[in-house]
Amino acid sequence: MYRVSTSVDQRLLSAADLAGMDGQQVVVHGMIQRIRKLGWGAFIVIRRQDGLLQCVIGRDGNEELIDGLAEEQSIQVTGMVKKAKIKDKSINPGSVEIQVEGIEVVSVPAELTPIDLSKKILDLHIDTNLDLRPLSLRHPVERARLKISEAFARAFADFLRDQGFTEIRTPKIGVAGAEGGANIFTVDYFGKPAYLAQSPQFYKQMGVGIYERVFEVGPVFRAEPHQTSRHINEYTSLDFEMGFVKDHTEIMLMETALLKYCLDYVQKVCAPELALLEADMPVIEDDIPVVTLAEAHEIAGQVTGKDYSSEPDLEPEEERALCTYSSENWNSDFVFVTHFPTEKRPFYTKDDPANPGTTLSFDLLFRGLEITTGGQRINDYQEQIDKMASMGLNPEDFSSYLQAHKYGLPPHGGLAIGLERITARLLGVENIRLTTMFPRDIKRLTP
Amino acid sequence: MYRVSTSVDQRLLSAADLAGMDGQQVVVHGMIQRIRKLGWGAFIVIRRQDGLLQCVIGRDGNEELIDGLAEEQSIQVTGMVKKAKIKDKSINPGSVEIQVEGIEVVSVPAELTPIDLSKKILDLHIDTNLDLRPLSLRHPVERARLKISEAFARAFADFLRDQGFTEIRTPKIGVAGAEGGANIFTVDYFGKPAYLAQSPQFYKQMGVGIYERVFEVGPVFRAEPHQTSRHINEYTSLDFEMGFVKDHTEIMLMETALLKYCLDYVQKVCAPELALLEADMPVIEDDIPVVTLAEAHEIAGQVTGKDYSSEPDLEPEEERALCTYSSENWNSDFVFVTHFPTEKRPFYTKDDPANPGTTLSFDLLFRGLEITTGGQRINDYQEQIDKMASMGLNPEDFSSYLQAHKYGLPPHGGLAIGLERITARLLGVENIRLTTMFPRDIKRLTP
Repeated sequence: MYRVSTSVDQRLLSAADLAGMDGQQVVVHGMIQRIRKLGWGAFIVIRRQDGLLQCVIGRDGNEELIDGLAEEQSIQVTGMVKKAKIKDKSINPGSVEIQVEGIEVVSVPAELTPIDLSKKILDLHIDTNLDLRPLSLRHPVERARLKISEAFARAFADFLRDQGFTEIRTPKIGVAGAEGGANIFTVDYFGKPAYLAQSPQFYKQMGVGIYERVFEVGPVFRAEPHQTSRHINEYTSLDFEMGFVKDHTEIMLMETALLKYCLDYVQKVCAPELALLEADMPVIEDDIPVVTLAEAHEIAGQVTGKDYSSEPDLEPEEERALCTYSSENWNSDFVFVTHFPTEKRPFYTKDDPANPGTTLSFDLLFRGLEITTGGQRINDYQEQIDKMASMGLNPEDFSSYLQAHKYGLPPHGGLAIGLERITARLLGVENIRLTTMFPRDIKRLTP
Repeated sequence: MYRVSTSVDQRLLSAADLAGMDGQQVVVHGMIQRIRKLGWGAFIVIRRQDGLLQCVIGRDGNEELIDGLAEEQSIQVTGMVKKAKIKDKSINPGSVEIQVEGIEVVSVPAELTPIDLSKKILDLHIDTNLDLRPLSLRHPVERARLKISEAFARAFADFLRDQGFTEIRTPKIGVAGAEGGANIFTVDYFGKPAYLAQSPQFYKQMGVGIYERVFEVGPVFRAEPHQTSRHINEYTSLDFEMGFVKDHTEIMLMETALLKYCLDYVQKVCAPELALLEADMPVIEDDIPVVTLAEAHEIAGQVTGKDYSSEPDLEPEEERALCTYSSENWNSDFVFVTHFPTEKRPFYTKDDPANPGTTLSFDLLFRGLEITTGGQRINDYQEQIDKMASMGLNPEDFSSYLQAHKYGLPPHGGLAIGLERITARLLGVENIRLTTMFPRDIKRLTP
């Protein structure tokens, strides 16, 4: 028997640490992102946990070492931190470099990579990028996108905890789909059919009866057969649900404050990544404009010259038109649309008593794309039973879910934000596969 | 069009807020956990986001109101915060109560609950507890268990971020199982067979090549057909993987510091819940003892009088015996066991060059149960190919995973902790279903 101590410090020197260590000797490690060999020596840029670090080595006495170095080798560098002015935005920190005193090669790849990871932009065909994801993600631009996505998700959780929300983890295998329809994956569960969760909706509502305010960050699964730039079949849903609301507008209020917090947080902690990506971050000044679906149709019609007044939903073309209008006229990249018709919203959506046929629901559009769906839910047992019946559903199929309503639930509502979608819109990335670590679509199950 | 503002404060008054508001008028809401009607009035205990709050109402002029109140109604209470000494540990804060001035009933249940949520302990048969999970979780003891689980998961993430780890989200649907064997669920993926992830192992290792240090908190799926108190078929795996390690002991070092942090954090933020549950929290003073599997067999043999020396793995009986020994002799509820044999560990496990036939792997046992499996992984491409071949696996079946090795990976390792298991052991809960919000097992897919 021996003992393993808690007291050994395994914390890595961060980019910020190094920026403040001019003149100090350090030992750092990383994988070689790129190497430029010149007459006098070489620039070696290594990839570390929080960015790229530039190391400079002289040739004298190091000829053999330098000749042997190549991309994607793992190395340990001993050297002196020295002030430098590095313009390349992929390097973090840009204010210091390492004057190399010694390099130990820790591991070498079996083959050179088939793609050039030293290029400023990795302009691969998207299928190549995704086929080679374990490599393409080693590129600074690709890494930066996911770092921003993670910062956003973290801010979501931090903000909500501070507002009294409890994080929950709900099952991804179950017996029924919350969102209905055919877009549901079947699992063989010990010989019985089961389904992958399309959303944590039922469990969030049960959670309101338990903790009043709950949130979840987790995967959801949609068996949608279409192959578009804004759909993937497994994505990360940022969900919350809160009790004791007056109506859907309180959910929108919470989301507005939440988004403002998340955007501020991302700008604070991901400054190097945002600079590298030249991201045009939106600003939420004090508020977000809200229109009803009927108003949205009218405005979209003004932009495109078409008549949408009889449409039951917002078409992608309308989403883009309304966002253009909002940006130009209301100075907002975000716009809420409320009061979708009853038949276009799931059975748990609360109808608007003041506007029969419409619901107390909303979408949030951002730069031309729907990134949130939310609204007030039905909390009364009989009202929910009646609405299920009117939609041709059998309440007995939902008996475990309906326990929550039967034994009491306060008025409540919530929403879901698609993490990959909002990240893509924030960064101006056209295809949400590129803001997903390992995307899944109808044609892709690997890597 | 109107605008929804960011500036409205929707933050709820917390228990800590109320404790400091003696003499102030407040408006709070919640669901009635229990009500005791007496000659002079009533005690009404409401369930809020962070615990139970006691409200006191006089009968004079309130007869009708009090008569109408019942458990699981949602109410809004206006009243005065007043100092009180409440012994009931389920109430938080125990230092104040609300002198009711007015009550508005916001919603009422359709039926009274079939179980008594006002009891101190909810002594239900486990199947009844789980069948009625949306209700049973409304009991303070059940709520408290999951609050502690969430605090632990949050601490896991916070600690690792501070150590330079990047959070990742990896696909739960894929083409192959990381852990092999038959315990894998099949999904119908657009007519093709796919599988639910048994662990994020492959993706974590790819992540090391990208971010050097990565972690994930997410669901994993094991189609194990046994129905025991320590197995569920969908659970939360706390995973990390780190590059540039010397060997498996650096992973154990990281885990030791991590666990110390998590335990401290839970004690800090969940004091009311721990008091309610009368939890006997373990203390990690400075270190955790480590034994090899051979030593573990010997010690377990001393305790039970049996000979385990030819066993290739640790049996549950041995795990309990070793933990008893560790607690009594080494003053530690935790004990690491290292050097499991090659044939008992997955193909990605690194063999110990100094002890052929054994691996640089470990389990962490805690109070009689394995709660972590970890170790160093193979980072060299050819070594991994050779080991796969020696285990009868075809490397071509893993070609997208092996990109990471082929194009370079530093020496690395990691581990996985089962969240439900460690929470159960922390709280002395016999069945991990009771530290799971909505458990899944061979017989249970609902609620």
